[in-house]
Amino acid sequence: MRAEIVSVGDELLKGERVNTNAASIAKALSGIGIPVHRVVDCSDVEGEIAAALSEALERSEVVLVTGGLGPTKDDRTRQAVQELLHKGLERSEEAHRALVERMKQYGREISASLAEQAMVIEGALAIPNTRGTAAGMIIRCGERYHDHYLVLMPGVPSEMKAMMELTVLPYFAQFSSTFIRHTSIKTLGIGESTLEEMIVDIEEALPEGTTLAYLPHAAGVNLMVSTIGHEREGVDTLNRRVVDAIMERSGRFIYAIGEKNLEETIGTLLTSAGLRVAVAESCTGGLVASRLTDVAGSSAYFLQGFVVYSNQAKESALGVPKELIDEFGAVSEEVACAMAIGCLQKSGADLAVSTTGIAGPSGGSDAKPVGTVCLAIAQKVAGEEPTVHSRRLIMQGDRQLNKLRFSEAALRELWYALRPETL
Amino acid sequence: MRAEIVSVGDELLKGERVNTNAASIAKALSGIGIPVHRVVDCSDVEGEIAAALSEALERSEVVLVTGGLGPTKDDRTRQAVQELLHKGLERSEEAHRALVERMKQYGREISASLAEQAMVIEGALAIPNTRGTAAGMIIRCGERYHDHYLVLMPGVPSEMKAMMELTVLPYFAQFSSTFIRHTSIKTLGIGESTLEEMIVDIEEALPEGTTLAYLPHAAGVNLMVSTIGHEREGVDTLNRRVVDAIMERSGRFIYAIGEKNLEETIGTLLTSAGLRVAVAESCTGGLVASRLTDVAGSSAYFLQGFVVYSNQAKESALGVPKELIDEFGAVSEEVACAMAIGCLQKSGADLAVSTTGIAGPSGGSDAKPVGTVCLAIAQKVAGEEPTVHSRRLIMQGDRQLNKLRFSEAALRELWYALRPETL
Repeated sequence: MRAEIVSVGDELLKGERVNTNAASIAKALSGIGIPVHRVVDCSDVEGEIAAALSEALERSEVVLVTGGLGPTKDDRTRQAVQELLHKGLERSEEAHRALVERMKQYGREISASLAEQAMVIEGALAIPNTRGTAAGMIIRCGERYHDHYLVLMPGVPSEMKAMMELTVLPYFAQFSSTFIRHTSIKTLGIGESTLEEMIVDIEEALPEGTTLAYLPHAAGVNLMVSTIGHEREGVDTLNRRVVDAIMERSGRFIYAIGEKNLEETIGTLLTSAGLRVAVAESCTGGLVASRLTDVAGSSAYFLQGFVVYSNQAKESALGVPKELIDEFGAVSEEVACAMAIGCLQKSGADLAVSTTGIAGPSGGSDAKPVGTVCLAIAQKVAGEEPTVHSRRLIMQGDRQLNKLRFSEAALRELWYALRPETL
Repeated sequence: MRAEIVSVGDELLKGERVNTNAASIAKALSGIGIPVHRVVDCSDVEGEIAAALSEALERSEVVLVTGGLGPTKDDRTRQAVQELLHKGLERSEEAHRALVERMKQYGREISASLAEQAMVIEGALAIPNTRGTAAGMIIRCGERYHDHYLVLMPGVPSEMKAMMELTVLPYFAQFSSTFIRHTSIKTLGIGESTLEEMIVDIEEALPEGTTLAYLPHAAGVNLMVSTIGHEREGVDTLNRRVVDAIMERSGRFIYAIGEKNLEETIGTLLTSAGLRVAVAESCTGGLVASRLTDVAGSSAYFLQGFVVYSNQAKESALGVPKELIDEFGAVSEEVACAMAIGCLQKSGADLAVSTTGIAGPSGGSDAKPVGTVCLAIAQKVAGEEPTVHSRRLIMQGDRQLNKLRFSEAALRELWYALRPETL
């Protein structure tokens, strides 16, 4: 079974919104062994929607559509499907009931325009919307379209996701006869070409049905090993074999296998070492703390963050000596070290990381251009003074990209300090 | 001139990466009056790329392609285009020179596999890559494809963006005879249906060539007013007239017109009022501070952030009384108020916002379910005790969505405290 995604919405074609729905649906389908072969974004215009759906239904057994089901005039997906399949609308009693219940919770009556949200294409299976008002549908398209399936869902990500999980995935899992296993291998501190040279023979000898992709990102390269086949166990074994071979070859650059991100890897390492962390941030403005606390259960090891944007705050919150700032400047390895040490002491943590830099667009100089960041890591040592070391880096990006890369660098330093092997 | 975007990469079809490139290209083209009619994501397989490009070139005068130009084996776009147009490759001397220069900076020689990054389709105009190694190209496709244009760019967003800005936009701006004006109207605190009821007559009387779209998001609804026409001034005037009518009707819910986001609106209001802000965060873990400091120049009004995850940190950093936490719990309006007041006093700011809540997935109870957040705003009053008020809200989402919504709610409270009109 091949799938295809059609995302409806002028806002996508105008670049006013990024299509996160397609990625989320593709990932979910992949998990039940249904590969996605195309994603198409088309406009809100009925004729365009109908054309995109018609082409997609010719090519693929199941076409999943997001957007255009809302209550306003620019929502035209229902009409486009009516036109395409020559079908009328009927009220889904189940969806109508859910809508009435939902409004009752808010102490409201159901209006005429809202009631239309429970109308589905004749003969369709209604998909309950547990997060909003528009009903989704699974439609069997008849002979004209080879009995292929059309799935309509709202464009609001939380509504779409709940529908996928509760109804769409269980429905289509029964048809899947292929299995796909994707494994992400996430690396840091190595470039794409160097990594490829390191594993070129593994890549050249990939087993049938397995592919290897390089996904460079801001701070490194991720690899994706994908295996497709008709038998779950064989697929898993083949995939695992390639992953193991790559790990053996380049393990010291790998910070995670699978879904785990760097924040989670750090959380796991902190937990197993029984260490607690605190952060002191200037240029990253809270982003490092926010990323560390994105991890469920991070309250067990994350104690405190200091966002010390002004020099005054660096002095009062962390005890950074004014003289140090005057002598070396707020953006200096010296100040970064003092921030990390102050953070360690004020918070009582075992490990602290600090950032001070120039995210831009202004504030740079020849000696310290925009993109400069100084990072320090301080660690408690039983019965002795804490240790501290620092690093200075220069990034190229706009303000937000610099903040992101600075935070990535800070997390990388934490990872280096925590990981079992050394480079 | 109609444009279409083809994004190449298995990672998009597997949902391993969100296609941000398409949105960024669409927005840029829109700005020079070239509308995008389709976006297609296709796999790395040569045949699939060629098929997608062939269909797109039939439909649209210019097809912009991202991805598949890198140095590794899964990069197949060049080959697909060679096959499609029956053309060979030639070395772009300019791109080669740039590559040699670039490597010299890093003290490296140019390897054979790297040198291939300077190879372009015969007769193509090479697009310099100022951020990476793969050259882009603008290709005139010949009679078979109605002399339509094919633009190849790398998938790495920073490289693609630089190419768009420096080469592609100036190149195609000369062909554009239509003008498009999009204006975003960003609202908070009003639902989609209510907003539509409020402006239904404006929507029904939209001038020819103008459309209105509703874009609901986590904390409100944005409107997009789009006008298309053949004369820049007329387009701007029509667009502005609709925007003004909507502003007059629903102005008190509008926090920004155009590109501005809530963080920037708050920054502008703080600057013009001459006020300085600080934040005290528990459940948002630094996200509020990070969002406020995403704004260029925020160091002028953002003083300091306290990420007080542990109760100990709430006490030591902000002076929240232990008894208060014991009596009401860390997640309570009482503690939120104490955090905001403590934050005001420790930082010397004029305005402080605090967050304490349960982002989940664990830590909830019947009385305080996951998704509960307490927010407080404290304000300095000359010669008197500071004022403080609080609010308790319940959100529905996973941990990260809750964090985002909590931070959105905190920014909204700041906006309410700062905006000139009152509801």
